Amino acid sequence: MDRKVQRRVPTAYLPSVHWESIASDGAARTGVLRTGHGAVRTPAFMPVGTLATVKGLEPRDLRELEVEMLLANAYHLTLRPGEETVRALGGLHAFMGWDGPILTDSGGFQVFSLASQRRIDEDGVTFRSHIDGTELRFTPERVMEIEAALGADVVMAFDDCAPYPCSEGDAAAAAERTACWAERSKAAMETIAAREPWPWPQRLYGIVQGSVVPRLRRESARRITSLGFDGHAIGGLSVGEPKELMLETLDVTVAELPADRPRYLMGVGFPEDVVAAILRGVDLFDCVAPTRHGRTGAAFTREGRVNVENARFTTDDAPIDQECGCRVCRTWSRAYIRHLFRSREMLGPRLLSYHNVAFLVDLVAEAREAIERGEAGPWAARWSQRYLAAAEEVPCA
Amino acid sequence: MDRKVQRRVPTAYLPSVHWESIASDGAARTGVLRTGHGAVRTPAFMPVGTLATVKGLEPRDLRELEVEMLLANAYHLTLRPGEETVRALGGLHAFMGWDGPILTDSGGFQVFSLASQRRIDEDGVTFRSHIDGTELRFTPERVMEIEAALGADVVMAFDDCAPYPCSEGDAAAAAERTACWAERSKAAMETIAAREPWPWPQRLYGIVQGSVVPRLRRESARRITSLGFDGHAIGGLSVGEPKELMLETLDVTVAELPADRPRYLMGVGFPEDVVAAILRGVDLFDCVAPTRHGRTGAAFTREGRVNVENARFTTDDAPIDQECGCRVCRTWSRAYIRHLFRSREMLGPRLLSYHNVAFLVDLVAEAREAIERGEAGPWAARWSQRYLAAAEEVPCA
Repeated sequence: MDRKVQRRVPTAYLPSVHWESIASDGAARTGVLRTGHGAVRTPAFMPVGTLATVKGLEPRDLRELEVEMLLANAYHLTLRPGEETVRALGGLHAFMGWDGPILTDSGGFQVFSLASQRRIDEDGVTFRSHIDGTELRFTPERVMEIEAALGADVVMAFDDCAPYPCSEGDAAAAAERTACWAERSKAAMETIAAREPWPWPQRLYGIVQGSVVPRLRRESARRITSLGFDGHAIGGLSVGEPKELMLETLDVTVAELPADRPRYLMGVGFPEDVVAAILRGVDLFDCVAPTRHGRTGAAFTREGRVNVENARFTTDDAPIDQECGCRVCRTWSRAYIRHLFRSREMLGPRLLSYHNVAFLVDLVAEAREAIERGEAGPWAARWSQRYLAAAEEVPCA
Repeated sequence: MDRKVQRRVPTAYLPSVHWESIASDGAARTGVLRTGHGAVRTPAFMPVGTLATVKGLEPRDLRELEVEMLLANAYHLTLRPGEETVRALGGLHAFMGWDGPILTDSGGFQVFSLASQRRIDEDGVTFRSHIDGTELRFTPERVMEIEAALGADVVMAFDDCAPYPCSEGDAAAAAERTACWAERSKAAMETIAAREPWPWPQRLYGIVQGSVVPRLRRESARRITSLGFDGHAIGGLSVGEPKELMLETLDVTVAELPADRPRYLMGVGFPEDVVAAILRGVDLFDCVAPTRHGRTGAAFTREGRVNVENARFTTDDAPIDQECGCRVCRTWSRAYIRHLFRSREMLGPRLLSYHNVAFLVDLVAEAREAIERGEAGPWAARWSQRYLAAAEEVPCA
């Protein structure tokens, strides 16, 4: 078994403090998240490895990029290959060959965005798989079984993610259900963890809902934070609402979250949104944008997004981003990457995904430095101004 | 410019002896090919990087796999991105970030297999691009211009590759044309190289044709070898003829090729064929099989080809090939790679292409060792017996 690097996990490392603050500047803060698979400097960006692979990238690439934590999806993994298969193969870390920290999302968002013929009741959700139409049922207890079998370092409670827009009544009902399910998730996880523990702790985070209604967000935050989770997530944002409304809702919500636990803004990862949320005190981010954009030829650069298939790059010997130090920018020209995309060569999506993840990782690293210098505000203003001023319209999936 | 590793090429390295023999065992031999971008131990397997990328793999991967030489295609590269674009970006090596030896095929085979509305005359071929139908014309002189602009270390003369089956008359006409075009290719290349030299030599190889007709093969070999090429290729095989006929034709042809120049069997790369051809004195091979099979889920293993999507691998924690030491086999299980293919994740084709290239590289390395021990025959018999005995039927593109 020792051919697998990822099997070398600490077996008795149970850090008592999950997250510690290092520095703060206004609401923005830096810290360190400790897990059984290593530490994560926050603010941190987690690339999305939905099906136990960050599309097109290997764990070695992610290490090289100084990615410190990944996200995977309980919903997708229970469908393929099934959580018991993953457990039998040593859990997610061993299965995918990544020995760093992993967070699994509970599937609340996916059930509401991907599954069909959804019927919700107070106990859970019945739905059909987006792959083959098989009928499945998720309850908080069932989802905790799945996440326990996968063995991630941080697992999310099962939530009801209201769409945008929705009526205040629907938003209130979803927030109420989310609170009940959070309590049941916590109770279930405690039972399961005691029965079949991994050699590392699985930290459970609660999710705040409430759509864009300040009163509901405050109520949801108070109920969720009263339950004693290891961290708190802000769900139900970046689902189509205007940016200002997202930031206002974020302000209202973060104000209710305790300062001594990590705060995770789910699904947010456009660079400008990450900068804005870091200023507001968010510690963790995830988003498919770097890899999804990377697959379609959209590159993040310090001067905005560019489409690498643009004809002006035909003989351009410069790297994708002149200020980026990633291996792709050190090695290949825009002209070459354009050629790969024009020729539909699979190396193109890989190289651009690599660069885009580097871009997000660099962004949070710069933010941490700015916070620690006490210059978060000015840094964020300069960064965003430059990024947004020059942005070109890019078709993104 | 020094951010590009590949720019560091020797500027005054002009090895006077292109290929030197090291050892021989019967007809089989080992040697070393010297180029301005480094040495290549022969017998060698060249992965195919048609469009200046070995599909799914980076130059770093290929180095790590101890690949020593790549093949790229003049036909494809003149269509996309165009040889002048490649030249403007520093040539193929700089363009694709590979600082090792490269061989370009002349497009003879591609014009006859991919292009449409082909009209052949004694001077050249007029055809339509398989991409957009543009009318193009290849003559020996035009193809040498393309290959000179690309800047590979070894370039192939322009040939007329007869299909299989074909009449003896057609085979004779194609062989005759190939001989005329070989002479014109050589004259053209000498003129071009004198006019616009790269800092490294471009060695020119002639191609022997003649279908499966022994008399034609012998005549073609005599005419081609009389022209003073740096190396000799055997074209027009592995185009649909039965294996025995391929090997008989190979025997007839190799007997006519001088022992002091490298011999290249074009387009052959199925493991069992590589073993058989090495025994007959072939030094260089190329084939899309490792990467094409890798993309479709077919894995080369020492016990034959296997389909990684096979249900028996669902929870199989073993590597693709138990005896393979490549990074993929050291890191991931069959179960994980099966999951990637079942989920249509792009990492699957990448990892399996990597392993399959490792398999061919290991195969030629084993062959070299066997030849140097004087055990080529017994080694080949053992190797083939094991590989072919256990092979399962695998769907391959």
